Amino acid sequence: MGLFISMEGPDGSGKTLQMDMLQKALIEAGYPVLRTREPGGPAISERIRALLLDPACKEMSPETEALLYAAARAQHVSQVIKPAMAEGKVVLCDRFVDSSLVYQGIGRGLGVSTIGEINHFATGGLQPDVTIVLQIDYAEGLRRKNVQYSGQLDRMEQQAGSFHQLVHDGFSQIVEWDPERVRMVDGSKAPEEVHTMIMEVLKPWLDRVLPQ
Amino acid sequence: MGLFISMEGPDGSGKTLQMDMLQKALIEAGYPVLRTREPGGPAISERIRALLLDPACKEMSPETEALLYAAARAQHVSQVIKPAMAEGKVVLCDRFVDSSLVYQGIGRGLGVSTIGEINHFATGGLQPDVTIVLQIDYAEGLRRKNVQYSGQLDRMEQQAGSFHQLVHDGFSQIVEWDPERVRMVDGSKAPEEVHTMIMEVLKPWLDRVLPQ
Repeated sequence: MGLFISMEGPDGSGKTLQMDMLQKALIEAGYPVLRTREPGGPAISERIRALLLDPACKEMSPETEALLYAAARAQHVSQVIKPAMAEGKVVLCDRFVDSSLVYQGIGRGLGVSTIGEINHFATGGLQPDVTIVLQIDYAEGLRRKNVQYSGQLDRMEQQAGSFHQLVHDGFSQIVEWDPERVRMVDGSKAPEEVHTMIMEVLKPWLDRVLPQ
Repeated sequence: MGLFISMEGPDGSGKTLQMDMLQKALIEAGYPVLRTREPGGPAISERIRALLLDPACKEMSPETEALLYAAARAQHVSQVIKPAMAEGKVVLCDRFVDSSLVYQGIGRGLGVSTIGEINHFATGGLQPDVTIVLQIDYAEGLRRKNVQYSGQLDRMEQQAGSFHQLVHDGFSQIVEWDPERVRMVDGSKAPEEVHTMIMEVLKPWLDRVLPQ
């Protein structure tokens, strides 16, 4: 039945680098890997992503934003994630429902339970088997993002600092909602060290899937 | 506080012509009118509309479709309908939540109560003050559409006949859900006759709003 791993964390937590390292390690170990990201995935979801991140959409209401993320996710689940799981793949997904609970539920103040219900509809109740949350100090995440960025910020990145602070703090709460599934990893360490911790956390789940 | 009138009915029921006649009559009577349509309205909603109706989006899942309609509506309500109501306008809207209850709730089989909850989130609970449903025999609606159409059908229009039959029958049910708000009008009569019936139905609501 495959394995569904999601990676979460605030901007600057090192998600992309850790996704790269994890993908490489799993492929080298012989696992059939499908790497994907949210918002995005199939063509319809990428078109919704373009709308969500377009800096021209300044007037987008919080409810519209939440529903567009859920719409992109519904398509992603039905067209990409579920079929890959059915083929026995290890699905690595950069952000999933937890990001919506944090960004829209907490950051936008729409409420975690409301956003949870909408996303339950979008996913048909599908959840990751395991979720890694990369934790990082707010100031350090900001510093890393500033070093990394030279281009134009997208619509979400352009939000006020108070929004990003709420989001940052929100990620620390995810583990409390579902401690069995969600595992915190200290993202402030050196990349190789973080990668080793992630592999240790994932071991019990990976042991259930046979490399091919 | 304005007045919010929605017009509903299956394809071929004469909605567009009746919207034209109603708009003209209200403007001539001195009412400040805002005419709009769903999916659509403000720029963000029109971009969602383009995605929803694009025949290239054949793989769109029912859940994605329902969430995109709700997202377009959320933006329409916050950016256009609520401000117009606050200015005391008479808002004429071609389709609103009832269309989603019928097309996605019944036609797609997603359930009327589930679609109702998602749309309650999208609209913040805003409902039309009065809704006109144009009733027409399924075969007659189909005949009218075939006469009218020469161009390419959009994604929704391309759906199977069984879907459109479910939708057609669904529109007869709306009145049962909220008989105080929803009024059926026989759309099979001559346009002038239908218009007169609509004006009679709307009279008690229009009497509450002062022409300017």
